[in-house]
Amino acid sequence: MTVTIGILLFDGVEELDFAGPWEVFAAAAAGKPEELRVVTVAERHTPIRCNKGLRVLSDHAFDDAPALDVVLVPGGQGTRKEVDNPVLVGWLRRIGERCTWITSVCTGALLLHEAGFTAGRSITTHWAFVPALRERAKDATVLADVRYVQDGNVVTAAGVSAGIDMALWMVGRLFDPAYARSIQRYIQYDPAPPYAAQTQ
Amino acid sequence: MTVTIGILLFDGVEELDFAGPWEVFAAAAAGKPEELRVVTVAERHTPIRCNKGLRVLSDHAFDDAPALDVVLVPGGQGTRKEVDNPVLVGWLRRIGERCTWITSVCTGALLLHEAGFTAGRSITTHWAFVPALRERAKDATVLADVRYVQDGNVVTAAGVSAGIDMALWMVGRLFDPAYARSIQRYIQYDPAPPYAAQTQ
Repeated sequence: MTVTIGILLFDGVEELDFAGPWEVFAAAAAGKPEELRVVTVAERHTPIRCNKGLRVLSDHAFDDAPALDVVLVPGGQGTRKEVDNPVLVGWLRRIGERCTWITSVCTGALLLHEAGFTAGRSITTHWAFVPALRERAKDATVLADVRYVQDGNVVTAAGVSAGIDMALWMVGRLFDPAYARSIQRYIQYDPAPPYAAQTQ
Repeated sequence: MTVTIGILLFDGVEELDFAGPWEVFAAAAAGKPEELRVVTVAERHTPIRCNKGLRVLSDHAFDDAPALDVVLVPGGQGTRKEVDNPVLVGWLRRIGERCTWITSVCTGALLLHEAGFTAGRSITTHWAFVPALRERAKDATVLADVRYVQDGNVVTAAGVSAGIDMALWMVGRLFDPAYARSIQRYIQYDPAPPYAAQTQ
């Protein structure tokens, strides 16, 4: 049984929102190719223009994507447009209903909400988007000042780089902490931000 | 005066090695578009297949790249092939000689060495590559257990995720710590790895 993780891409996706988890999951898949694979999925096969301008080609379009066990929805300015895209939201709703884990990074939580996965859940998002998400997702509890939150099978991470932490946690859940630790070591994730954390 | 940062891409580049610094630099450029821009540069315009399979389109090929003030060389298995590519190494040597800062992440240090920028310098690389780089770069001092090292205008970071720390430091040098701090906050870089750091 291979677990398949799908990372959703769309124009305006924030680069590190997906590239951090991609690195973590793909490194985990490289070590256990029979047990894990990770793919990128977009509405179409045309190149994705990310929020800061990086251009990426997805592995799959919606109509040729494999069945997913885990879906990861990154954030980025593009979420503000995609939240009104019934094709993307409908795909996410259908796919998510069959997934073991439904996850987001940053403002990807907005799309999870639109697809109906956050009702009654504790969730989080980028610190600057917390008030807007509280306004919109009145049926959810939007937590601030947490790195990631698991509530049932919904796991939401805070802004941008928080996806790395969440993905490592997810590898620990899909396999075991020892394996996640080896991936953390592989990506040499002993972070030393040059500036101290600030109160937000 | 616009500072231009060029991130080198090649087949087999490790995704987070470049995507972490890309995010940091591109976020910094978004806030100061008159003063900073960041571009990706590859030998050709054909899609890059990264080490874990992500496909990326570079902004420029060598023959249409702008003049660079900062060059960043990521690592990845592809460095083992590119170290024997005289076109790439020659480009790096010519570009680097005119750069204010020459930087690498992970095994990108191997390419900096090949291009002649590490002689007499203290440098670092991915923890697992330290012995191999010491063997190869006998004229350099290869440090282990450091996140990034500045020696003159050469700045080398440790493995994969260390590029994020180094890029934030670089933004602080190019502008000022307050601006770098705002970028660190924007990418919500208050890392909380789910597992404790290990002795390597």
